[in-house]
Amino acid sequence: MLSVDEARERILSPLRPLPPEMVSLSEAWGRVAAAPLAARLANPPADVSAMDGYAVRAADTIPGDRLRLVGEAPAGHPFEGAMAAGETVRIFTGSVMPRGADCVLIQENATREDDAVLVGQPVAAGKHIRREGQDFAVGDEIVQAGRRLGARDVGVAAAGNHAWVAVHRRPRIALLATGDELALPGEPVPSGGITNSNTPMLAALIRASGAEPVMLPLVRDDLEAIAAAADGLRGVDMLVTLGGASVGDYDLVQAGLAKRGLEIDFWKIAMRPGKPLMHGRIGRGPEAVPMLGLPGNPVSALVCGLLFLLPAIARLSGEQLAEPERERAVLGAPLGENDHRADHLRASLARDAHGGFVVTPFPRQDSGMLRRLAASEALILRPPHAPAAQAGEPVDIIRLDRLGL
Amino acid sequence: MLSVDEARERILSPLRPLPPEMVSLSEAWGRVAAAPLAARLANPPADVSAMDGYAVRAADTIPGDRLRLVGEAPAGHPFEGAMAAGETVRIFTGSVMPRGADCVLIQENATREDDAVLVGQPVAAGKHIRREGQDFAVGDEIVQAGRRLGARDVGVAAAGNHAWVAVHRRPRIALLATGDELALPGEPVPSGGITNSNTPMLAALIRASGAEPVMLPLVRDDLEAIAAAADGLRGVDMLVTLGGASVGDYDLVQAGLAKRGLEIDFWKIAMRPGKPLMHGRIGRGPEAVPMLGLPGNPVSALVCGLLFLLPAIARLSGEQLAEPERERAVLGAPLGENDHRADHLRASLARDAHGGFVVTPFPRQDSGMLRRLAASEALILRPPHAPAAQAGEPVDIIRLDRLGL
Repeated sequence: MLSVDEARERILSPLRPLPPEMVSLSEAWGRVAAAPLAARLANPPADVSAMDGYAVRAADTIPGDRLRLVGEAPAGHPFEGAMAAGETVRIFTGSVMPRGADCVLIQENATREDDAVLVGQPVAAGKHIRREGQDFAVGDEIVQAGRRLGARDVGVAAAGNHAWVAVHRRPRIALLATGDELALPGEPVPSGGITNSNTPMLAALIRASGAEPVMLPLVRDDLEAIAAAADGLRGVDMLVTLGGASVGDYDLVQAGLAKRGLEIDFWKIAMRPGKPLMHGRIGRGPEAVPMLGLPGNPVSALVCGLLFLLPAIARLSGEQLAEPERERAVLGAPLGENDHRADHLRASLARDAHGGFVVTPFPRQDSGMLRRLAASEALILRPPHAPAAQAGEPVDIIRLDRLGL
Repeated sequence: MLSVDEARERILSPLRPLPPEMVSLSEAWGRVAAAPLAARLANPPADVSAMDGYAVRAADTIPGDRLRLVGEAPAGHPFEGAMAAGETVRIFTGSVMPRGADCVLIQENATREDDAVLVGQPVAAGKHIRREGQDFAVGDEIVQAGRRLGARDVGVAAAGNHAWVAVHRRPRIALLATGDELALPGEPVPSGGITNSNTPMLAALIRASGAEPVMLPLVRDDLEAIAAAADGLRGVDMLVTLGGASVGDYDLVQAGLAKRGLEIDFWKIAMRPGKPLMHGRIGRGPEAVPMLGLPGNPVSALVCGLLFLLPAIARLSGEQLAEPERERAVLGAPLGENDHRADHLRASLARDAHGGFVVTPFPRQDSGMLRRLAASEALILRPPHAPAAQAGEPVDIIRLDRLGL
């Protein structure tokens, strides 16, 4: 059986970022930049005032002296002429500095008297001026390729005078749930049946990671029906199957997809919950579709989705992220020794007196407990063969309440 | 001047969660539940096997004994009859337990011989069975009102057999930027002009918080034009103005909107960056539109958006969240004493040897540095009159890299 890290590496290594498309700035939030963005406009675009007041020459700011007010330059309306010695121009935050001025006398230190301004305090040359390009100059790289664009990046792109951004296309991830026991939520559930919670749950996980889910219709436990589902993968960047990933008599996914050229890379991982995780690809060459087979158990499917599908989507999206962020917490309860499988314990989070995290595993870790998983604020990561740990010892966690999961 | 907390309280107190609407489960991710969801189907819906193996009676599991194989019950196809003593039924993970059986002999401990099964190990009654309703029973509350639905909640709702969810309507937030100096990004920027980065940036912040931005056209520094913009607020849940919030000669927002009934609650906060923050409402009674006036400086606008607009959107969305989550970090560099204004220092984050955060403020905190803000991983929260602090001392931070900002 593979380790979690080996499995992730084998899933990620064949994946490449999707090609770019252009989106307008109002649609760019949450997308991943496909190319660096260079500023077309400096910020600020000219020397501007950082305060409301009067543009002056430092040499003229002798307290008690009167300066002749020769004009005003509100933001957007620069003073056209040049200021001579003994002159001043009324300006505001963001106003372009008039030619001839070298600093700003803030209004709190000035007294207006008709067409004159009484200097209250001396001002040093350069004071209260934001220099052209102080934040960035024309041509500076203002957004890096591979960055998922937050609101601030959108603001920086706008300040650099971009209305369009090249981003990686959103990965389209097809979800295929198989099983005679499955009914669509809200529809009548026959005796012995359950609703298909995996497809809507994983579709939400895919949305949370910025990709686009394609929810394929439910497929019965039938080889030909499973094979036929693989014919609907045109334009899909990855196929995720749900259920049927082990080798029980009725676990037919592998055999069904083999009829359409599935080549299996591996299908067992030393982890809990989750062991039967399938990886492979359907078809060959540039048209091949990577395939990830998640367990049918919803708790296992979600944990495997977090550990393997999210990084795969990040890679396809052009992001650098390789795995969900780990944080540190101290245990709120003791843990026994772990066996050979990496464990992912559902747990609650609290804060200690110093603001640090205290993580407490739920006493029962049954992988049938979906509601318990939904109530978990974190997963505790227990490496294979981890020794027993006392309350108060540090452990690695992944916060679930922060990922849209 | 108000404190940050007082200002937030006064902004939030008049706001109420928006009315509900129904969305299908595939659109429910990221929305806020408007009512609790009660399970319509238990999970599991019946006693089911937790393993692949054979349904047996515990009393029959004497090693070496042969049990008569009377049928099989794959998931979705329950065994119709009742199992008698000495009989067994082939079952799989998720199969409904046949009547008469009380535990599961896992396949690793059984040997199949034609129509008989050889018992390898004794099994205790109840072993490897997931009981009906073990995760939740019919009628149990499986999603709480006020919860922002993550992927796991969508999964739980599906398992409880819901195809529709009542959620609070998305807040619609109108953005109104004013200023003669503003040009739309990508359009020609006249001399003395800048691009309007605030509207796209705040629109992205609004999207990041699950609300819907309405980007109003740019408005010049003209009282009538500003007043006319207030006529376009039908169906809008909050108006956010950008710029023109102080009382300089050209800061006309307050006077312009007063022509349409703006009543001001306050307009100064003891904080940095940000001081001129306006709050009020336009109109009276149930049709009144809450109004938040953010500073025109983009760094100030973003920080005030984080501290005041995000909580306002959370309140309108029906969420419990009152303010962005604070975390603890230790300082990577010393800080001087703070003055009477709450400060929000742009900073980088690193991890120490124990996995804790080290936060280091950028040496220059000029509020004109938008690119610097975009590169910041955290804001350090410095209360008014905070004493000087040495490297290694703990401080509160807000992580910016986690909020879609």
